[in-house]
Amino acid sequence: MKLSRRGLLKEGGVFLLGATAAGLSFSRSGELMSAVAANQETMEVPWPYKKLNPEVVAEKAYHGYYKGACCYGVFDSIVGELRREIGAPYTTIPTSMMIFGEGGVAGIASVCGALNGAAAAIFLITGSMEKEKRELAFSITKELFNWYEQVPLPDYRPSKPKFEIVKSISRSNLCHASVSNWCKVAKVKAFSKERSERCGWLTGSVAKYTVELLNANAEGNFKAIHKLSKEVQSCRSCHDKGGAIENTRGMMDCGGCHFRAPSKHPKI
Amino acid sequence: MKLSRRGLLKEGGVFLLGATAAGLSFSRSGELMSAVAANQETMEVPWPYKKLNPEVVAEKAYHGYYKGACCYGVFDSIVGELRREIGAPYTTIPTSMMIFGEGGVAGIASVCGALNGAAAAIFLITGSMEKEKRELAFSITKELFNWYEQVPLPDYRPSKPKFEIVKSISRSNLCHASVSNWCKVAKVKAFSKERSERCGWLTGSVAKYTVELLNANAEGNFKAIHKLSKEVQSCRSCHDKGGAIENTRGMMDCGGCHFRAPSKHPKI
Repeated sequence: MKLSRRGLLKEGGVFLLGATAAGLSFSRSGELMSAVAANQETMEVPWPYKKLNPEVVAEKAYHGYYKGACCYGVFDSIVGELRREIGAPYTTIPTSMMIFGEGGVAGIASVCGALNGAAAAIFLITGSMEKEKRELAFSITKELFNWYEQVPLPDYRPSKPKFEIVKSISRSNLCHASVSNWCKVAKVKAFSKERSERCGWLTGSVAKYTVELLNANAEGNFKAIHKLSKEVQSCRSCHDKGGAIENTRGMMDCGGCHFRAPSKHPKI
Repeated sequence: MKLSRRGLLKEGGVFLLGATAAGLSFSRSGELMSAVAANQETMEVPWPYKKLNPEVVAEKAYHGYYKGACCYGVFDSIVGELRREIGAPYTTIPTSMMIFGEGGVAGIASVCGALNGAAAAIFLITGSMEKEKRELAFSITKELFNWYEQVPLPDYRPSKPKFEIVKSISRSNLCHASVSNWCKVAKVKAFSKERSERCGWLTGSVAKYTVELLNANAEGNFKAIHKLSKEVQSCRSCHDKGGAIENTRGMMDCGGCHFRAPSKHPKI
């Protein structure tokens, strides 16, 4: 992509990101021009990573939840820490875009926003258009999603919680099912302050585990731990890639929605 | 967020985006410095918009699908056109990050990637941390999701298709259910080349309708057309906010997964 003067001088403003006037004298203009010439392209993924403190990121994510909800909370906590540790290119990305994922995308209660924000951050840091890196990023994301479905959550308690929060197992990566399952265990309503606090803790939990996975990957030690259940593997053996029926795809826990097999289902 | 010299001069490279050396002389350095001073912050959302041609974006999205899948296809087609039309700040965002949404996030078959990419683009262009703009972005996103659940899709035919593709109604915003419903109608397998082509057309369809919504909003004419069905409204009257049970949230078509109400459900 070529960049134009129109892009440079738009309505009197120039988007020069990652730079500060305070640290620059006019004598640096030559250096500046060389740098401009060297950086005419958008910096595509993967972006550089430096190991982060999972507890610090989790606490930041919890507070981010109360600012811009779950998806923003996870994404901004990780990218925000990398801005502080690394600087550019993390200074160029508008983390506020990720508010879109709130409550399963715009409150629609589809995929959990914390997971959605985490998956974006994982790809930003480890992914690529190139197959091998893309598959690595997807493996890390799948491990995160399986963990979320199988483990009693939330498992992060913020330093100053508004309420104490009980744990539940979601069996689903969907906001809708995750919330309903927790409401049943906690015996509170879906739009209560307690439920909101639970999603704050969960935002912290997802950010924490994402950073643990990214740190393990940075050390060359990433390994998927949470596997699909035998039940799901059994469904997939017919319904997924290469199966006799092959009429679907994916890795969601089937039993999270298919409460019982349809009456026409052959004996398993 | 304050920017540092570390951010400016990282490994000899400076992330000065939206600028080209060719269009600049050293005599402009004063102007450049003022601009740097004026733009110390990441440009948060909403970003400027210029009406786009829905057909052009749809065709680009179809081809983007074969490059980086559904989520990337929609996001890159819209942001790519805005880069061409507006320049910065669209030059600063790595659209390759959005590959993360492929096949319902990393192939997990949760939320449809085309919808996920569209929702991110909608928020980038219309959303904000501020409540009124956030609600507007969410309204546009909800209209898109309801349309996707209710309308026979794909409704965009690329200029040079690999196969002819039949339409189906997804009744769900999930990749998993959307794919399975289409496979049933088309009588082809989930990992066939035809199914892949269908998702290419669908990527074009979602990009096209997203641009139509964004254009309508730019003209001040956005209006939600696709409402929740009476069946879903009936479910929500008890289960959603303010209902007697209030044990869930969201706007997904209940019948897409809850094929029949559980046996314990009271008579409706």
